[in-house]
Amino acid sequence: MSILVFGHKNPDTDSICSAIAMAELQTKLGKDIKAVRLGNLNKETEYILNYFNIELPELIEKVKDEQEVILVDHNEKGQSVDNRDNSKILLIVDHHKIDLSTADPINLRFETVGCTSTIIAKLFKENNLVPSKEIAGLMLSAIISDTLLFKSPTCTDEDIKQAKYLAEIAEIDYEKYGMDMLIAGTSVDDKTAEEIYNMDMKPFSFGDQTATVAQVNTVNINDILKRKNELIKVMQEKIKNDKLSFALLMITDIVNKGTELLVVGDKTLANKTFGLDMSKDTVYLEGVVSRKKQIVPPLTNAAN
Amino acid sequence: MSILVFGHKNPDTDSICSAIAMAELQTKLGKDIKAVRLGNLNKETEYILNYFNIELPELIEKVKDEQEVILVDHNEKGQSVDNRDNSKILLIVDHHKIDLSTADPINLRFETVGCTSTIIAKLFKENNLVPSKEIAGLMLSAIISDTLLFKSPTCTDEDIKQAKYLAEIAEIDYEKYGMDMLIAGTSVDDKTAEEIYNMDMKPFSFGDQTATVAQVNTVNINDILKRKNELIKVMQEKIKNDKLSFALLMITDIVNKGTELLVVGDKTLANKTFGLDMSKDTVYLEGVVSRKKQIVPPLTNAAN
Repeated sequence: MSILVFGHKNPDTDSICSAIAMAELQTKLGKDIKAVRLGNLNKETEYILNYFNIELPELIEKVKDEQEVILVDHNEKGQSVDNRDNSKILLIVDHHKIDLSTADPINLRFETVGCTSTIIAKLFKENNLVPSKEIAGLMLSAIISDTLLFKSPTCTDEDIKQAKYLAEIAEIDYEKYGMDMLIAGTSVDDKTAEEIYNMDMKPFSFGDQTATVAQVNTVNINDILKRKNELIKVMQEKIKNDKLSFALLMITDIVNKGTELLVVGDKTLANKTFGLDMSKDTVYLEGVVSRKKQIVPPLTNAAN
Repeated sequence: MSILVFGHKNPDTDSICSAIAMAELQTKLGKDIKAVRLGNLNKETEYILNYFNIELPELIEKVKDEQEVILVDHNEKGQSVDNRDNSKILLIVDHHKIDLSTADPINLRFETVGCTSTIIAKLFKENNLVPSKEIAGLMLSAIISDTLLFKSPTCTDEDIKQAKYLAEIAEIDYEKYGMDMLIAGTSVDDKTAEEIYNMDMKPFSFGDQTATVAQVNTVNINDILKRKNELIKVMQEKIKNDKLSFALLMITDIVNKGTELLVVGDKTLANKTFGLDMSKDTVYLEGVVSRKKQIVPPLTNAAN
């Protein structure tokens, strides 16, 4: 039975590309391994797999008991594969906060960098291996995606260093390719409000409240805001079905670096954390582009 | 304010030596850092620091708010420094099971090897650095201690590889030095029963039960067993003071590879897990030498 490697549910570019890159790394190390995915691709990732002519990983929802797995770009149970508790986790490579408890010793490689693929690029080097041209292109794409072409506050010197190294191997002009890729990812005209909300949505716990935080990148916030009423309906539905305290949507302008935060449900924590006017649905957060660094930690701290 | 690096409470050789080695590594990387300890040295570690003429790290119990820390050889809150929740964890290097939840992304390097110093030796290499002769000797000593000179089932090829590399740098005959060091560590004639129990004792949770699991290495199990009544009294006191369900003492014969397990308090879980005769205090476990690999996981599984 092959080892399975996958990123989080509602996969973004890093979750898909890091899983495929890890599969190549482990294959070069002599392991029998297969990259899979826990959800549908977003437009940006579709553009990337198409650009590098990489086959779509198989969709799975749950794993069998005793299945050997490698996790990339996530560690929390709620974001992972169904039946994970009965699988055997060989390794987790991640750059998020941790919430994990195991019965046995485990291999973990967590670094506070902007992108999981940055860590995987280092792992290739530490093992004296060089990724193929296409896989280097995928890892480069993941770094561009997670760091918004090095503009996000989550971006570190290490991300830029590895991205430049990968761009050389992939023989790509990363500035031009990166902007094309990001813009290809922002078009939502053909999407329903539900699809927009679920594109890059993750569940979280803040103290004793549960919530979802979704993010959509755009080059024009009003393109999304004009569909506010539809989106609120989807989020209200989500709150009811999943018994959440509230639901957030970050509408992030990747050129001007700012986020219009849409809040549905119990607004108390968003009011306390971000100064949301309780009579309104949205608040504009200047300079905020990162869920991981600028939205989740302040909510966690305010809840505790 | 210097970064502080430390191992777990009731430090064993790996916790002390890995902290000192990590301090040298980070110093070479340009950081202002100091190795400290969370408890008194055992006899083995005393022998080692004396052998390599290394200064005793300062004893601390708690850290100030916002103190930057690096943790080695442990991650669970109960085994760590007081006030850790208000410190800033920069990095954890460990080889145990994990039970950790953070508000922010974190640097973690966990490998399923026999000793934390094995991982730290790799970190020196990855940063193109070579440890000093004395620090190589400390890391070698930690590997010998944790793997019982490569005889423990927790010992991996990587531990042996790094130990041999470190022995070359330290210019030491590791077979001879290792046996001297282990025997120096097993003498308990000058210790009270309380000191014996606390030498290498760790708290754990198994389902909804809390317990302590201590281990003492020996070359003659009867040397320790003859003090059984004193030890039982100490363990009963411990159970009462810390409101534990039970307390265990592993009396491990490092030459013949086996453990006499002394059980005090509620014997139900030890009966279910190790077949302890409920009318007796001890059960001999052939081939068992590792708390981490052969005692804690079966108890965890039996409790769940």
